[in-house]
Amino acid sequence: MLEDLKQEVYEANMKLPALGLVSFTWGNVSGIDRDKGLFVIKPSGVSYDELKPEDMVVVDLNGKVVEGNMNPSSDTPTHTYLYNHFPNVGGIVHTHSPWAVSFAAAKMDVPAMNTTHADTFYGDIPAADALSQSEIEEDYEGNTGKTIVKTFNERHIDYEAVPAALVSQHGPFAWGPTPDKAVYNAKVLEVVAEEDYHTMSLTHNNSDLPQYLLDKHYYRKHGANAYYGQDNAQSKNHADRA
Amino acid sequence: MLEDLKQEVYEANMKLPALGLVSFTWGNVSGIDRDKGLFVIKPSGVSYDELKPEDMVVVDLNGKVVEGNMNPSSDTPTHTYLYNHFPNVGGIVHTHSPWAVSFAAAKMDVPAMNTTHADTFYGDIPAADALSQSEIEEDYEGNTGKTIVKTFNERHIDYEAVPAALVSQHGPFAWGPTPDKAVYNAKVLEVVAEEDYHTMSLTHNNSDLPQYLLDKHYYRKHGANAYYGQDNAQSKNHADRA
Amino acid sequence: MLEDLKQEVYEANMKLPALGLVSFTWGNVSGIDRDKGLFVIKPSGVSYDELKPEDMVVVDLNGKVVEGNMNPSSDTPTHTYLYNHFPNVGGIVHTHSPWAVSFAAAKMDVPAMNTTHADTFYGDIPAADALSQSEIEEDYEGNTGKTIVKTFNERHIDYEAVPAALVSQHGPFAWGPTPDKAVYNAKVLEVVAEEDYHTMSLTHNNSDLPQYLLDKHYYRKHGANAYYGQDNAQSKNHADRA
Amino acid sequence: MLEDLKQEVYEANMKLPALGLVSFTWGNVSGIDRDKGLFVIKPSGVSYDELKPEDMVVVDLNGKVVEGNMNPSSDTPTHTYLYNHFPNVGGIVHTHSPWAVSFAAAKMDVPAMNTTHADTFYGDIPAADALSQSEIEEDYEGNTGKTIVKTFNERHIDYEAVPAALVSQHGPFAWGPTPDKAVYNAKVLEVVAEEDYHTMSLTHNNSDLPQYLLDKHYYRKHGANAYYGQDNAQSKNHADRA
Repeated sequence: MLEDLKQEVYEANMKLPALGLVSFTWGNVSGIDRDKGLFVIKPSGVSYDELKPEDMVVVDLNGKVVEGNMNPSSDTPTHTYLYNHFPNVGGIVHTHSPWAVSFAAAKMDVPAMNTTHADTFYGDIPAADALSQSEIEEDYEGNTGKTIVKTFNERHIDYEAVPAALVSQHGPFAWGPTPDKAVYNAKVLEVVAEEDYHTMSLTHNNSDLPQYLLDKHYYRKHGANAYYGQDNAQSKNHADRA
Repeated sequence: MLEDLKQEVYEANMKLPALGLVSFTWGNVSGIDRDKGLFVIKPSGVSYDELKPEDMVVVDLNGKVVEGNMNPSSDTPTHTYLYNHFPNVGGIVHTHSPWAVSFAAAKMDVPAMNTTHADTFYGDIPAADALSQSEIEEDYEGNTGKTIVKTFNERHIDYEAVPAALVSQHGPFAWGPTPDKAVYNAKVLEVVAEEDYHTMSLTHNNSDLPQYLLDKHYYRKHGANAYYGQDNAQSKNHADRA
Repeated sequence: MLEDLKQEVYEANMKLPALGLVSFTWGNVSGIDRDKGLFVIKPSGVSYDELKPEDMVVVDLNGKVVEGNMNPSSDTPTHTYLYNHFPNVGGIVHTHSPWAVSFAAAKMDVPAMNTTHADTFYGDIPAADALSQSEIEEDYEGNTGKTIVKTFNERHIDYEAVPAALVSQHGPFAWGPTPDKAVYNAKVLEVVAEEDYHTMSLTHNNSDLPQYLLDKHYYRKHGANAYYGQDNAQSKNHADRA
Repeated sequence: MLEDLKQEVYEANMKLPALGLVSFTWGNVSGIDRDKGLFVIKPSGVSYDELKPEDMVVVDLNGKVVEGNMNPSSDTPTHTYLYNHFPNVGGIVHTHSPWAVSFAAAKMDVPAMNTTHADTFYGDIPAADALSQSEIEEDYEGNTGKTIVKTFNERHIDYEAVPAALVSQHGPFAWGPTPDKAVYNAKVLEVVAEEDYHTMSLTHNNSDLPQYLLDKHYYRKHGANAYYGQDNAQSKNHADRA
């Protein structure tokens, strides 16, 4: 069942340690088959060096396990919520990558301060509100998805143009058209969080990118007029080119 | 004698360089057989690429060497003290990992500021008092254990729920139900110390986790109601799953 | 066509991930044959582990592709501009290396504060002005080259003695007599940016190098009186010796 | 001639990149045969992956090359000066390791703030005065050795107990009874410089070690009463044990 997607999700999971985004088992990637309404996700607590494609768990959009011998990631309800509310998302990743966590703990956005950021994120990466006590106690993982979606709605952020968020006090989630692209976005977030930290230490002057530079870099790589990479008509699928 | 435990302690020691927790030989792991009242510890000053399982030294709970041709770690009296006063501890590790040392030198706790912390430590990781001149001169390594235990008692911290401490001016000790789990906890300490440092630089606002979030993340992974990993009934032995 | 130069440019590109200067495909190196008036550059958006020497694209000094099946780097007009205005440059590199980007986002020069800097750069590495909206919209990549050249002219900086620049809000460009030397200079920039950041955090005292120390270290390695390395008469081609 | 020493010096040089202390060729190690009054040093500007034991250059205590086809390190006069004035030194190393360089540029000592420091250095690692213009122009490398020795004399620091120094605006030199031990000391300096930086950012309180803790840790590993390692009577040769 969904063997190709399992392989794809497996490979995206294996990129997390390779890209330095996880220690131990602190991360998970999922990918969805929108036609079938099913997604595939890493099992909970399995170490990356033991992980196999067939370990991936198949889950429906109500969060019910449809196939698999193992428990899915404990963050499965967050993935479910995001797939239900971000209809064009094809893959989701959660990590505890340290620079993103540092900003999340400070409850601060990762601001758009350089073109590395603008190449992938069309604006600041928001820090969603921390969950209240009742939100945590009632449905922690589901409400983790909810605070992200609420933040994007309230701040009028396009989730396709800014494909990541921090959850305050917790850490980053990223997404994209595919699981691989979601992992790519998670890495970019980690890189620009580190760069922003250092820029903010170097100067107290305003370092926010002007809108026209954000426009230029983002649309060099995305949309109908993109001219970066080898395959401009499909540039959205190839934003990891340079 | 205790061949399985020697192998287990050897493997836990070998994780220290693999996890980036030690330079040269600056660390040691031990593990205890509570039934026999004996623990096994790395020999002093042997480099990790020469270390062999049979080099491990067997010590009793009076700190006397029972078996082994080599000198045990010079920190053996600290391990002895901790095993005697923390009865549910199965393994202990000491390192000079740099972020933990930086906090220890500043005589500062590593505060609970994010869920990476709460997944493993149910509260701040305390900086035990530095030793006085007479404590150092009389019994340095034994009193190093004593200041840790005293800090946990005075501050009413549960050593099983917060399985690590800093010794001010010196560095970190961590422990757990097994040697492997102790090393895991030492790595988490290092990761969250780095994250806290950056969070504290980003903001002067209070970034302490609220109690209910600490509860949520800690008890997702620990205790009777844990639901993280593949083996919830035994989740305490599997907290390194994600 | 230009097979030796393609190989040379290919090898210089492959040093970028090896030296930790790029994530994903975020960088490009070119090299020029001045006699033919043609340069060779990495194709746009091709990942380093798939890159082959024959993928390199040949471009003339009007920025027109002369040979190659792939699109050249989207930064090709910047390279073209720099080759046209810096006549002794033989190779150019652009990266998004994180320390240099952090300074670029802060719109700050990387000041000459230590001899590691002076061994390669005869003075501060300037942050060129950010582009205006009209400069971005009219000819972004060309004007990126223009702001660098303008900065060197206005500040009377010798581009051969200070072979790198930051473009504010964007990132670093470096150059040299060969593609390999350009990559070397890009790495030195990254190293000294990190060192300067930490020096500037340690002290608010003036840490600028005095002119006589800049003279000493720069001319130990460069020019007619150089005495560093094995081949002093050609020391300019061997500044990567120590 | 001195084949064993060449091998030893070669191996110590090769540890510099392995320990992350050098980029490119920015470092050199030497070792001395005190009976013959000759030392062996890395040739200038040769990259580590091409270096061979037989490339090492033999130099006498007047700084004259006695054997070897290559130019010795351009820092040879500094090594010569130090061997002449620090009579118990058996090996010397110079690097541009980045944390030590950051302190050197700030003209700041690396203070003794933790036991990692005290295990190897019996007190602060001094920043020697920067050279004056005339000192630089007359005999740069020789006077680099001179400012180190002058600092140790004026501040009454025992060069055997504090086996490293920073040269302000430049970088670190370290030494020891053997070339290998000198490299070990250079690594410890880099580690504690990083830790001190972070400790100094965490707190403005005094974090200097008290004398009695410095005594305890230093003499655990050094001198007649050392009890660290497997070979206490010779503990001075085995300080790299833990």
